[in-house]
This record gives sequence, C-alpha cells and structure tokens, in this order.
Amino acid sequence: MSDFLLHPQLLADTHPVCELALCSVRLMDDTRWPWLILVPRQPFLRELMDLSADDQLALLKEVNRAGRVLQRLYRCEKLNVAALGNMVPQLHIHVIARHKDDYAWPRPVWGKGTAVPYSPEQLSEQLVELARALSA
Amino acid sequence: MSDFLLHPQLLADTHPVCELALCSVRLMDDTRWPWLILVPRQPFLRELMDLSADDQLALLKEVNRAGRVLQRLYRCEKLNVAALGNMVPQLHIHVIARHKDDYAWPRPVWGKGTAVPYSPEQLSEQLVELARALSA
Repeated sequence: MSDFLLHPQLLADTHPVCELALCSVRLMDDTRWPWLILVPRQPFLRELMDLSADDQLALLKEVNRAGRVLQRLYRCEKLNVAALGNMVPQLHIHVIARHKDDYAWPRPVWGKGTAVPYSPEQLSEQLVELARALSA
Repeated sequence: MSDFLLHPQLLADTHPVCELALCSVRLMDDTRWPWLILVPRQPFLRELMDLSADDQLALLKEVNRAGRVLQRLYRCEKLNVAALGNMVPQLHIHVIARHKDDYAWPRPVWGKGTAVPYSPEQLSEQLVELARALSA
C-alpha cells in the first residue's frame, strides 16, 4: 500500500472527504453536481479488473454506500456510476447525483462547460456533511 | 423474470450477442467503438443498488467477462465501464473498448457525432465472434 499516490489531476480537481476501507473518497470541486470520486488506495491500478475479486466486491460496497449517501442528501433523480480513466489513468470511480434540472441533464457530465468551484464556506460545509453521512 | 422487457431504445440501438446468467449482452450498432451493453434480465431495475447483493456480484463478474473479451479481441487501450441511465431508465451497463486513435478519445463516447452502423456482413461477423468469445 505504501506505493499509493494520488494522481496529480485528481489531487487538483477534488477535495478529500473521508477514507473508507478500500477507497479514498473525494469531492469534485464543481457545485453543478454532487460528485464523489472513489480511489482504491493501491498502486498501479487502471482497470476494475486489476483489483482482486475480494477488492472488487469491497469497491462495489463502497460505491453502493456513496450512492446511498448521495440519494439521501440530494434526493437525486438518478445516479451515474462510471469508471472511465481515459485522461487520468489511475483507477477511480465517479459517483454522481443527477437531477432533471441540472446543467447537463440528460447528457453525461464530462466535458460540459467549466467547473463552478465551491466557496470556502460551502466546501467545508459540504465536506463535513458528506464525511458524516459516509461514516454513519 | 417474466415481467422483463427490453426498453425500446435499447432494442433499437443494439443487437443481441448472447445471454449470460444474469444479463442479456447486446452490441451497440456503432462501428466507431466496440461497445457492449449488459442488461440484467429483471423487471423494474434502475440503479445498481436495485439488484440484490448476490446479483450485483454476478453483474460484476459478467462486466469483467465482457471487459476481458473486449481487451482480447480489440487490444484496447482502456475500458470504459458506466451505468448512467439518464435517457434510458432501464438499468444497463456500458462496457466500451477505447483506443487512443478513436473518434472521441480521450473524451467519453456519449453524445459524440452520429452512430456509424455496421453493414449486415460486418454485423453478423462481429456478433458471432463476440458470442463465441463470451461463451468460452
């Protein structure tokens, strides 16, 4: 585990929410969508299949947990769950709360306009709320 | 299981490849990307979390299988795996083979230009090859 380093792009685009058993959970710095990123803390991962079967199962459980938290906090219409990784090769899972009146609906969120960052106050409020919900 | 019906949009956009234990596997009718769609054959599913824990595990295994087949047949650079469902509410998982010289790289594939359908010959060849690889 000691070789794990967060990719600089993820470090730049997201803020740390909390640590689950397998993944670091991070918040995308874009107020247009409640958008979590789960990063398994193991080095050299690219594809879901690079994780052991047990760790894939653990990841699934953590994705479920993140999804339930987003549903509960944001009463979203739909969850979007995706492992893409074309730009950032380090394995990371997007879990995004979508609403029918959001900026990109019904299209996917990637590449739509420019991120609208959180203010410092919004951000700390959001991080505390998410960390509390994820650890409950 | 008898209430399961494929959403008309999936029926229109894809061709049947084979049936796995949980999912119908279908090929998106777009030659720009080798693009499989996995649809769990259960009625009224929207989110991954709507599946039982056992069925989520089964889905994960079938996604792995689809991903390995795409990697082997198309020597792709990256897999994209996603459950979006904003437009087609029925739960379905995209498993897409991406190459660095493909039409949308490094962006996601959704909403990029217009699908380029298979010719009848290409299609039957592709379906046979995929069905054989998925059942191996």
